[in-house]
Amino acid sequence: MELLKQRILTDGKALNSDVLLVDSFINHQIDPPLMQAIGDEFARLFKDQGITHIVTIESSGIAPALMAAIAMDVPMVIMKKSISSILSEELHQTPVYSFTKGTTYQLTLKSQFIKKGDRVLFIDDFLANGEAALGAARVIEMAGATVAGMGIVIEKAFQPGRERLIQAGYAPISLARISYMEAGVVEFEP
Amino acid sequence: MELLKQRILTDGKALNSDVLLVDSFINHQIDPPLMQAIGDEFARLFKDQGITHIVTIESSGIAPALMAAIAMDVPMVIMKKSISSILSEELHQTPVYSFTKGTTYQLTLKSQFIKKGDRVLFIDDFLANGEAALGAARVIEMAGATVAGMGIVIEKAFQPGRERLIQAGYAPISLARISYMEAGVVEFEP
Repeated sequence: MELLKQRILTDGKALNSDVLLVDSFINHQIDPPLMQAIGDEFARLFKDQGITHIVTIESSGIAPALMAAIAMDVPMVIMKKSISSILSEELHQTPVYSFTKGTTYQLTLKSQFIKKGDRVLFIDDFLANGEAALGAARVIEMAGATVAGMGIVIEKAFQPGRERLIQAGYAPISLARISYMEAGVVEFEP
Repeated sequence: MELLKQRILTDGKALNSDVLLVDSFINHQIDPPLMQAIGDEFARLFKDQGITHIVTIESSGIAPALMAAIAMDVPMVIMKKSISSILSEELHQTPVYSFTKGTTYQLTLKSQFIKKGDRVLFIDDFLANGEAALGAARVIEMAGATVAGMGIVIEKAFQPGRERLIQAGYAPISLARISYMEAGVVEFEP
């Protein structure tokens, strides 16, 4: 998605080979027209997948997922990051390790919102190690639903997330795939 | 806002005199057309206030704030709930007590996103004790900006939030004001 790549080049900030700041348009401040364009692009990419629900993880995934949900006219569900593991028939939970924070949270979904037969598009802002996406897929499948698509806004293609997802049987589609970063430098996959 | 009140009556669930579950359309699962209507209503209510930015608090405020930002064509900023207090020229922070969780978080804003002269509309999903809204107003004013409006999706009008905000000089506008709740019963202000 050319508009997004250009925006990353002008307003993103690579601090080192690992950390990309996009908080002036994706994470902390949001640029509504850009976010609308992102939602429209996800809708275009996944229009033939029979998507019934969009699922994301709080809180940075909410904006792109909501815009995609509006463009695709399907309900959207926000998985919560819970500190505690709760055993309940009403909840689906799985532990997810956050490399950014160095802690584990319980990715949590109320079972009433995703059901057997649903075809779910998972959307998130970043793909790096793939932990969050793999966790989301586990929860969606615990609910008896199908992961019918994975849409990522920005992928760090030099990290193992995509490979892990493909090995697990998923096919993530990313709007911007970064092949290389160092302080002040961002390069995309061709 | 009649559409929202009707939805609360049909799909909301008052557990007791204090807890209202709206997680099937506001918090956990989001109904995109309803959220668009909420954003449009905020845009209509605050259209003459010269709003330059919309600010909300992660994560339940993001959806209504984003829809309002799209309707008003202004950038939107998400204040973060940080665990730690960080002294930095780059951040504005204030402690906020969460009655729901019984803990205090540091409401955090990067100073680059809200500046002197900005006219900020604060949007949140709930108004109850007013702690979050008062904290948000402190942070906006630390940044040198003006709180030009406060828009709330659902107000528990039987709790002291509105009174505290008015005493502090703000004038919150809520789309649905609940005057009374008990298990299975929700009543609105006339």
